[in-house]
Amino acid sequence: MGLALFSTIEPQMREVSQILVDTLKSDNPLVALVADFVLAASGKQLRPALVLLASQFGEQTAQTRQNTVWVAAAAEMIHMATLIHDDIIDEATIRRGQQAVRSRFSDPVAVLAGDYLFAQAFRLFARTGQPEIIALAAKVVEVMCVGEIAQHLDQGRVATEAEYWQRIEAKTGFFLEASCRLGGLASQAADGVRDVLGRFGHHIGLAFQVVDDLLDWLADPQKLGKAVGGDLAEGTYTLPIIYALQTESYRARVEGHLRSPDPALGMQGLRALLAESGALDYSRRQAEHHVREALSVVASLPSGQARDSLRNLADFVLAREY
Amino acid sequence: MGLALFSTIEPQMREVSQILVDTLKSDNPLVALVADFVLAASGKQLRPALVLLASQFGEQTAQTRQNTVWVAAAAEMIHMATLIHDDIIDEATIRRGQQAVRSRFSDPVAVLAGDYLFAQAFRLFARTGQPEIIALAAKVVEVMCVGEIAQHLDQGRVATEAEYWQRIEAKTGFFLEASCRLGGLASQAADGVRDVLGRFGHHIGLAFQVVDDLLDWLADPQKLGKAVGGDLAEGTYTLPIIYALQTESYRARVEGHLRSPDPALGMQGLRALLAESGALDYSRRQAEHHVREALSVVASLPSGQARDSLRNLADFVLAREY
Repeated sequence: MGLALFSTIEPQMREVSQILVDTLKSDNPLVALVADFVLAASGKQLRPALVLLASQFGEQTAQTRQNTVWVAAAAEMIHMATLIHDDIIDEATIRRGQQAVRSRFSDPVAVLAGDYLFAQAFRLFARTGQPEIIALAAKVVEVMCVGEIAQHLDQGRVATEAEYWQRIEAKTGFFLEASCRLGGLASQAADGVRDVLGRFGHHIGLAFQVVDDLLDWLADPQKLGKAVGGDLAEGTYTLPIIYALQTESYRARVEGHLRSPDPALGMQGLRALLAESGALDYSRRQAEHHVREALSVVASLPSGQARDSLRNLADFVLAREY
Repeated sequence: MGLALFSTIEPQMREVSQILVDTLKSDNPLVALVADFVLAASGKQLRPALVLLASQFGEQTAQTRQNTVWVAAAAEMIHMATLIHDDIIDEATIRRGQQAVRSRFSDPVAVLAGDYLFAQAFRLFARTGQPEIIALAAKVVEVMCVGEIAQHLDQGRVATEAEYWQRIEAKTGFFLEASCRLGGLASQAADGVRDVLGRFGHHIGLAFQVVDDLLDWLADPQKLGKAVGGDLAEGTYTLPIIYALQTESYRARVEGHLRSPDPALGMQGLRALLAESGALDYSRRQAEHHVREALSVVASLPSGQARDSLRNLADFVLAREY
């Protein structure tokens, strides 16, 4: 989808896809069945795209190019593993418009498939021979898990807006920051350049997640592959809801909807209420703010096609409709 | 417990315990709660013991000693992660005589706690700066997952004895082989020595698992921390059952027990039947065979305290009662 428009990294994105296929293939027909199913549900591949785009600011040797595509593929495998495990946690049945792994097979197979992907990802990271890459990748998983464990043991309480930002930083911001840093490490980019790339990724990550949470209310359910208000139905309060609950004149009505005995009917009404309260506009402005920050960060990088492609990515984050 | 008797590695085993505590501590009180619970349920620590025992055949520099304790701790963390995830898969409520993580908290927390342990383990492996260590550790997880995925998608069918050996190789044999090899890698032992250590670990692993499966029928349930025949109750057919089903004159009676409407009552009768059929003796002889193989393998290593400690370990595998 969208990200294929980055012509500068198209050949490497194809290599990444091939590495995923090669790494996950198995002699065992049952394992191969699971691997094929997982690969068929491929998404936007934002993380490998960021690894590759960031690597354009480092060295371009045969070794750095090889390490970069390995790291890009491994980052996507970490992402796939967390999605498969998230679906167990959320008891989700649909992922990217398809059956979730746990629905197609079972929770046990989903636990194991995620673990298998984690292991294969770390094998790929290890092939670079760069321990700092492995350490950063492990930190990504750690940050996501710690954030989610805390959230799960603290359920039933509506988060504050500050907690929302902490949560999406742990869930997406840090991973996208790390994807950029990993591209810098794999390509032996200078420390200062890696920091700039990391800050770009951080803001892109926050913007991406805010848009994601907004699309949960605004996107065409056909394109998005899940129902309107799906996050809320799974018990996750995102920025639009949190904002509306913060707004004195809307709190009572939003709370009324949240207690609605018919959630399916309630979601349309709630969406209208979120629009009226300004919560959707507020979320949009927050996403725009972080995209602006990302664009401002990259201004310090050398101009050229590589920097243009980061800017295109930033624009894509706001423009996407699903 | 038992393994502390290896006085040569006692100081390092204490270091390993300290690394586990330090690595899992968290500023987040909820995450710390999970970490404390996980650490309190500590087991035999066979894998770190093997890493440390094997490392005695390599170099003894400050660097190799440091790498060895990191690798030993990381191997235990991989093991802890797989146990926590296995309990989700088996819907187990008790682990090592305590509540399982999924029972104390929830399945989502158990999924995340396992992922967190995997990530922290790979961070520790990465600290060695030895990519071949990370690659082997990842292979361990891969082998275990592939074995279990295949088993889960093929449930309800009674395995053959050949399949039983394949399964326990994937579940335990390869991990214990790899633990020995990891000790060799961390201590820069020669290739040939690492191969010998690996073969020792392989046989110890098979013997250990056969004894484990036997103790499921023979051990004092108080000491073992679970009920007699617990594996069968979870749907896992181990060697005693597989052997008895292979034995013409017992098959019908064992099958009758397996269809028993009262599994709790049936387990005692089934145990008597397994004893009478020679299935328990057969399992014992298989364990003894693999311990003999392990002892024969280490004969090629230089004599001394290090080799004696491997022999002590082999004896321990047969002597343990829970």
